[in-house]
Amino acid sequence: MVNETQHTCSASSSSRSDGGSSSGSESSKDNSRCSTPVLDADRHERLREKMRRRQDAGDKWFSLEFFPPRTANAAVNLISRFDRMGAGGPLFIDVTWHPAGDPGSDKETSSMIIANTAVNYCGLETILHMTCCNQTKDDITAHLQKAKRLGLKNIMALRGDPAGEEWEEEVDGFNYAVDLVKHIRSEFDDYFDICVAGYPKGHPEAESYEADLRHLKEKVFAGADFIITQLFFRPETFLKFMKDCQAIGITCPIIPGIFPIQGYHSLRQLVKLSKLEVPQEIKDVIEPIKDNDAAIRNYGVELAVSMCRELLDSGMVHGLHFYTLNREVATTEVLKRLGLWKEDPRRPLPWAVSAHPKRRVEDVRPIFWASRPKSYIYRTQEWDDFPNGRWGNSSSPAFGELKDYYLFYLKSKSPREELLKMWGEELTGEESVFEVFTCYITGEPNRNGYKVTCMPWNDDPLATETNLLKDQLEKVNRRGILTINSQPNINGKPSTDPIVGWGPSGGYVFQKAYLEFFTSSEIVTALLKVLKKYELRVNYHIVNVKGQNITNAPDLQPNAVTWGIFPGREIIQPTVVDPVSFLSWKDEAFALWIEQWAKLYEEESPSRMIIQYIHDNYYLVNLVDNDFPLENCLWQVVEDTFELLN
Amino acid sequence: MVNETQHTCSASSSSRSDGGSSSGSESSKDNSRCSTPVLDADRHERLREKMRRRQDAGDKWFSLEFFPPRTANAAVNLISRFDRMGAGGPLFIDVTWHPAGDPGSDKETSSMIIANTAVNYCGLETILHMTCCNQTKDDITAHLQKAKRLGLKNIMALRGDPAGEEWEEEVDGFNYAVDLVKHIRSEFDDYFDICVAGYPKGHPEAESYEADLRHLKEKVFAGADFIITQLFFRPETFLKFMKDCQAIGITCPIIPGIFPIQGYHSLRQLVKLSKLEVPQEIKDVIEPIKDNDAAIRNYGVELAVSMCRELLDSGMVHGLHFYTLNREVATTEVLKRLGLWKEDPRRPLPWAVSAHPKRRVEDVRPIFWASRPKSYIYRTQEWDDFPNGRWGNSSSPAFGELKDYYLFYLKSKSPREELLKMWGEELTGEESVFEVFTCYITGEPNRNGYKVTCMPWNDDPLATETNLLKDQLEKVNRRGILTINSQPNINGKPSTDPIVGWGPSGGYVFQKAYLEFFTSSEIVTALLKVLKKYELRVNYHIVNVKGQNITNAPDLQPNAVTWGIFPGREIIQPTVVDPVSFLSWKDEAFALWIEQWAKLYEEESPSRMIIQYIHDNYYLVNLVDNDFPLENCLWQVVEDTFELLN
Repeated sequence: MVNETQHTCSASSSSRSDGGSSSGSESSKDNSRCSTPVLDADRHERLREKMRRRQDAGDKWFSLEFFPPRTANAAVNLISRFDRMGAGGPLFIDVTWHPAGDPGSDKETSSMIIANTAVNYCGLETILHMTCCNQTKDDITAHLQKAKRLGLKNIMALRGDPAGEEWEEEVDGFNYAVDLVKHIRSEFDDYFDICVAGYPKGHPEAESYEADLRHLKEKVFAGADFIITQLFFRPETFLKFMKDCQAIGITCPIIPGIFPIQGYHSLRQLVKLSKLEVPQEIKDVIEPIKDNDAAIRNYGVELAVSMCRELLDSGMVHGLHFYTLNREVATTEVLKRLGLWKEDPRRPLPWAVSAHPKRRVEDVRPIFWASRPKSYIYRTQEWDDFPNGRWGNSSSPAFGELKDYYLFYLKSKSPREELLKMWGEELTGEESVFEVFTCYITGEPNRNGYKVTCMPWNDDPLATETNLLKDQLEKVNRRGILTINSQPNINGKPSTDPIVGWGPSGGYVFQKAYLEFFTSSEIVTALLKVLKKYELRVNYHIVNVKGQNITNAPDLQPNAVTWGIFPGREIIQPTVVDPVSFLSWKDEAFALWIEQWAKLYEEESPSRMIIQYIHDNYYLVNLVDNDFPLENCLWQVVEDTFELLN
Repeated sequence: MVNETQHTCSASSSSRSDGGSSSGSESSKDNSRCSTPVLDADRHERLREKMRRRQDAGDKWFSLEFFPPRTANAAVNLISRFDRMGAGGPLFIDVTWHPAGDPGSDKETSSMIIANTAVNYCGLETILHMTCCNQTKDDITAHLQKAKRLGLKNIMALRGDPAGEEWEEEVDGFNYAVDLVKHIRSEFDDYFDICVAGYPKGHPEAESYEADLRHLKEKVFAGADFIITQLFFRPETFLKFMKDCQAIGITCPIIPGIFPIQGYHSLRQLVKLSKLEVPQEIKDVIEPIKDNDAAIRNYGVELAVSMCRELLDSGMVHGLHFYTLNREVATTEVLKRLGLWKEDPRRPLPWAVSAHPKRRVEDVRPIFWASRPKSYIYRTQEWDDFPNGRWGNSSSPAFGELKDYYLFYLKSKSPREELLKMWGEELTGEESVFEVFTCYITGEPNRNGYKVTCMPWNDDPLATETNLLKDQLEKVNRRGILTINSQPNINGKPSTDPIVGWGPSGGYVFQKAYLEFFTSSEIVTALLKVLKKYELRVNYHIVNVKGQNITNAPDLQPNAVTWGIFPGREIIQPTVVDPVSFLSWKDEAFALWIEQWAKLYEEESPSRMIIQYIHDNYYLVNLVDNDFPLENCLWQVVEDTFELLN
């Protein structure tokens, strides 16, 4: 009997698959280690495994290629592009390597730092390109070590272009990509997933198409995990190449590189660099419309869509790699038409996760950084371990100082002029500030007709979830309760809820109502009287810039304010109000008044002095209503406070 | 402003009180350590601190003294008495030290092992007595080390009675209790809380009452934390003694020892040992009724209640220490009349916690041992750390083997004859076994007129919570679904709920429905077909004695089935269904058929063969309904299974 067994395992093989982080240990020591609930299998898999899993599931995917920007401003823009295009659900992105641009340095425009930002701050699986010609073994090893340290796990191993006109082999040097592949495998074992380039038309410098195929096979046999191809213009070019690869024994995934034509000049330039020939039928269409950018882009999208369809329909292609040229519109359009763009992919946790391997177990954060996840990641980048299950014994000094408010990935996407339009060229009093907060909440234009789409504490428009509280938030901001973070209470909504859901399906999510705001000491005095009535129900932390701190938190313990219950899993509690980290957040939250707002104005100007006054005298308050099954009482608390003041 | 601050702490002093286990560390390493939610402050305090806190809160308490039993059977009974009397909420119990009875040995009747059992298996704060005369320093140090290793934290330091008639001081030996106090402090620093004895009438061997007071002061100044007095018969005796102590500078707590007279002979014996004189007014009452045990006990209760009332009313007494003579009735009666007996004290967690200091962070256990907590504690006694927050990477081999089914604290309280009456002198088939299970559930007498009050998997009558499921349980047991563990689903009941509540007040508790049973392979085959319909909702583990294991648990992860949300705290999830530990539990659960049931019958007897057949052929099944907000579907699963079989 019992023949229809689903998953059978014998009692003796009771080891546990736990995401690969460590195999089942038998020491009692390990029994109290927190395990990871593996909410999102993706966070634990290598890129090559993800590829394999998606292929096995018949689940088509795409990836996106970017090059490093030239200026710091362009870097800011590229990072917000990562965030926007990341929302479509790429399997990975890759960042090219420009030997002339000091690619391994710490400059904000280097390939290394852009890839680092993509992994750590945007949570994207990332491949860093690396070229080897004209470089010493030591330089390359140093680059690879740095990449590993930063949490990069995938390398695209390339030869690169020789520096001079004449191409001379160096004895014992890196002459071909295969040398780099071998070096990575010999120095870093199986740590990196390695990608290599394939040339559907053969490498321009290869003796022949066949010779080039043999080189490719060498690269794969030296340890490459998959191949991304150079761009091509006809689907049959790729399909023939793929068959030829298979014929000589290349069995790893081969991903076609897709180049949606986006303009006449960029096409010409690319063709020149890649030494490819544009087929006559394409030239015939483009030449007559070469000055009409929109027309060319439309044609490029059509062409790419039809080629991608043909590739996917062949059954041989499971993923598509896009050469974006750092642009958004054409690629996004192609992906949407192909049905590959997956807006609102399932959120594994309510906050944006980082893709650094050492953070893969992380599943708890303080709520304070909800709108500044990059700053949180930055300030905790030196941690060796991350909270998992419980928040743990964090203590304020463990948070890195945030002095570099102008780090490109922490900086506002909006330039100074725009911020002035939103937050006021000239402030006339604290009420002008109340107005800015109110306009941000309502989405209505300010008195000068500009919409307030960001605030120093939140670089994005109001979250959909916060919209649930819009009316109440507007009312209190008008009266000087300057809200910077809030969430409604939730008593068991399905984890698939489009607004508040997160985690795997079949679960239920919960929240305690939360409200965080700056307000005057006068309001705080009244608030504290009111809070006595709510002592058993509401937890509060009230602190000013000097660190005077008033709280009723029991034993300074963290309070879980978001949690989820899922089938067959332990409880996940991804956000907490933690009294100790609140004091670190306080420093950052107060500093943002000055760094992002006051400094827009000249020293000693009245506007600047108003912001400085608020910074010096206001309190930062957070309130949690612990009674999540009942109606949120925090609005009543605020109303009672205003009543007491009247 | 903000003058009415409740708790104020400056930003710089951000260290966190976390139960004393470790002070706030600043290393990033510590950031991912699980913190303890401090659900029950008691679990983290030293006895002297608990005393102080109860005194400060004006909260009167009591404690209970026991002596080690003479026989193994008496040990079994004493341990169940610990459980029953522990339910009344003593602040601590103490176990006397009998030099003649090998008190430090590993015998089940030794003082050391009884105290060990009280702490570890009954979860009671325990004081171990220790005497020092006629013992070497090394012996005493070894006893203390062993006590520490076993998790004992409190010592009552006594001189003890000299072995011979003649009392000779030994040079450099332990002649007085004060020597033992000094020794403990010098060898173990502040590890132990130390208690010493006080004599309200003066020690019989002391030169004078005053000299004895000075000896007591010496003991306190040598490092004792509190005093328990010898029994006395009049409240004024104690109150005078207390004032005299205070007058000479003894400021530590002094706890009156109360002796409820329980019988004529026990009183005479005690008086002889303690060399006390029974006051005439008591003799006058007792002598005429000396052969009427009930009358003497009633009088003893009256007398004790009135003396205790007087002591408590004096305002000088905050706790009462009872000499129980290992009996239950009189002391319980006195405590109930005084209003000190607190039945159903708040459960800090849904299972019985252990009082070993290394287990104080423990807050997750597998549900399987819900009715066998002592066996669970025994099997995990060698662990260095305990799961806290998440269940962790437990693996089957980390559980100690359970071969000693007859360890006195794991053994059934009922003797063989009683078990035979409950479970059947002679079984006629599997149906006889179904009947036993059904009678246990319904509470109805079996066919021979005996109630079934325990089962091999549960030594106690059905839990109140299980009663909620009684009707359904009865139905399925009649048909061969032999249930051994179950809980209803709970969707957010107050933590103060008298049946399913646990943890601090103001919280909400939740459960997923759980059902665990033995059943035939025929039923399992049908069940598996039915479970396909419930694949996304119900998690199951099905295993036979050989370890054939069928499950749909994702990645063998634990499933949280009980959790609680409390004001200002992280989520607590005290019970999980863990696939790995289930395989250890399986061994124990199957073995209990043989060890506790089959072995009641002669080898080769039909009854024994029936149980052996079940052991060899049945499956152990557990089912979790993940959809806790909906009506429990597990009964429908079972009904569908029976329908399929018909």
